[in-house]
Amino acid sequence: TFSQKNHKVVLFPGHGIGPEISQAVCDIFAAAKVPIDWEHHEIYTKPINEAGDLIKEESLNAVINYKWGLKGPFATPIGKGYRSLNVTMRKKLNLFANVRPCRSLAGVKTPYSNVDLVTIRENTEGEYSGLEHAVVPGVVENLKIISQPACENIARYAFEFARKNNRKKVVACHKAGVMKKGDGLFINTCKKISSEYPEIEYTEEQIDTVCMKLSKNPEVFDVMVMPNLYGDIVSDLCAGLIGGLGLTASGNISHTCAVYEAVHGTAPDIAGLNKANPTALLLSGVMMLKAMGLQKEGFAIEEAVIKTLSEGKFLTGDLGGKATTTDYTKAVIGHINL
Amino acid sequence: TFSQKNHKVVLFPGHGIGPEISQAVCDIFAAAKVPIDWEHHEIYTKPINEAGDLIKEESLNAVINYKWGLKGPFATPIGKGYRSLNVTMRKKLNLFANVRPCRSLAGVKTPYSNVDLVTIRENTEGEYSGLEHAVVPGVVENLKIISQPACENIARYAFEFARKNNRKKVVACHKAGVMKKGDGLFINTCKKISSEYPEIEYTEEQIDTVCMKLSKNPEVFDVMVMPNLYGDIVSDLCAGLIGGLGLTASGNISHTCAVYEAVHGTAPDIAGLNKANPTALLLSGVMMLKAMGLQKEGFAIEEAVIKTLSEGKFLTGDLGGKATTTDYTKAVIGHINL
Ligand SMILES: CC(C)[C@H](C(=O)O)[C@@H](O)C(=O)O
Ligand SMILES: CC(C)[C@H](C(=O)O)[C@@H](O)C(=O)O
Repeated sequence: TFSQKNHKVVLFPGHGIGPEISQAVCDIFAAAKVPIDWEHHEIYTKPINEAGDLIKEESLNAVINYKWGLKGPFATPIGKGYRSLNVTMRKKLNLFANVRPCRSLAGVKTPYSNVDLVTIRENTEGEYSGLEHAVVPGVVENLKIISQPACENIARYAFEFARKNNRKKVVACHKAGVMKKGDGLFINTCKKISSEYPEIEYTEEQIDTVCMKLSKNPEVFDVMVMPNLYGDIVSDLCAGLIGGLGLTASGNISHTCAVYEAVHGTAPDIAGLNKANPTALLLSGVMMLKAMGLQKEGFAIEEAVIKTLSEGKFLTGDLGGKATTTDYTKAVIGHINL
Repeated sequence: TFSQKNHKVVLFPGHGIGPEISQAVCDIFAAAKVPIDWEHHEIYTKPINEAGDLIKEESLNAVINYKWGLKGPFATPIGKGYRSLNVTMRKKLNLFANVRPCRSLAGVKTPYSNVDLVTIRENTEGEYSGLEHAVVPGVVENLKIISQPACENIARYAFEFARKNNRKKVVACHKAGVMKKGDGLFINTCKKISSEYPEIEYTEEQIDTVCMKLSKNPEVFDVMVMPNLYGDIVSDLCAGLIGGLGLTASGNISHTCAVYEAVHGTAPDIAGLNKANPTALLLSGVMMLKAMGLQKEGFAIEEAVIKTLSEGKFLTGDLGGKATTTDYTKAVIGHINL
């Protein structure tokens, strides 16, 4: 065998429980012999420059150079004068797609048991343009932008994702009856691109109907693609279906790099107490491994997580158990089968 | 006792199953001795003028004159060249608030059993401005408008509603971290008005978090107030929690008139077959009765619906039963206790 250079990954442990769940991920990855070298970078809790950034230029460049990042939860500054870290990263790294797989996990009690869907969110435009002003006092205009190139990017990403992951259906979620031009452009673009993927069933559905079905019978969905704001809402809604943000993986994808992330909070009340559940960050790391081509390690860790949760012996407090982060980490490591 | 003039109500039976469920409502109201005279008005399936209207000016005027309307499901024309009926009514009648109570119904199996919340949606602005254009080919701008007067109207309505209905909490749902000025204006206005209602607990929550909690533990919510598009999404999501649009009441409120409505579809596959479930339209009618001050009749019918559903002997096909619309109607009438 050739000696293969390790992948370098930028790790943002973040704040609160961030460092301990990051440590858990590093330990589990090491046990699974994942060929990764981590490079730790900081997220700041206060703006570090005039522009209000919470992250150094060199950290963003590291993600560009190494192609991979993994990000823990981080604290949002109080007050004004800072730029949202997520929005900054998405814009500067052109992370145009946010991908969130949601699958019911045996061992985690929720009202639903057959959820297996993926939300794919356009991550750069829509209501997130940042273009807002008061036309007269008391009347605010906000520009929602929908562009053909962004629609093409996200639509193609969704269909490629479906094809690669052997998924059968893509639904484009929209409100084109009301936003005829903007959301109209979105669905027309999705439709056009769908014709290149004849093996995948393509449908369109209004975002309100989508959310009604998600709370009534979420098992009807497979891959879902949508503009930014709908994606923000639906991806959290879907996380709720499988037990919450503590269990949900998330990936932000550009054409040349990607940042995977836990989307839950920093849980300051239990920070440093060895009580946090590292699952969301771990499964985000698993997504990254699969994208790197490290399928074997990715699936081995994923299986170990599923076994640990369904066994139910070492659950952390958020899942009604009493295990420490370390107990859970050891249990996952014990289930790794390479 | 004085002889009291009956209320006049504009009834739009609509299309598909609309006429038969409207008949069921009229029969049940008659059995409950509701002092109402109905005036039937038509919704058209094709535009009736150049502007693309689906409703006559005189019908809108009738709602203004009589103050009350009840609307069944209606078919949306295929293609372009018409104006959305709902949007037209909201604009022309200034129906600034959409109110949707969602309460778990015994006898209707859903994943949740303790839902008891009300969504209050601003009904006139936000992304529904209709202001859209392509700045250059392939780039569409849509104006999301948030204005102080509309925020005040809806916030005040929400707090008044909470007070009158003895509800404890109001949560304002927003995305002010991203739309700092627009959604910021919304929550600042809600907050200002909340100070006039010290007995009601006021909180603010991001719309994505709201939707996550709705799918995870919806029982935490009470009255929810929000801008137009979020309201469109959340009110359907909440309908899903209690069994779908076939069971959900809806009211559109102005300062001087109101239109109550079933928000489900026309179900053309079962139209005319005496199989439709009239519950959504009936409970919308009950909302109307309570708003008219006809509490006794309103509660009597509501109780009769709850009994009929929880008894489970005469359920229509959508709820897994075999009863006809007429069977169900008779059962409800049988349970009316004046
Ligand atoms: C923090 C906020 C700007 C962000 C968003 O709305 O995109 C968050 O909710 C997310 O989903 O990453
Ligand atoms: C038909 C459509 C324009 C409408 C809306 O989005 O408001 C509908 O979904 C509703 O909720 O009444």
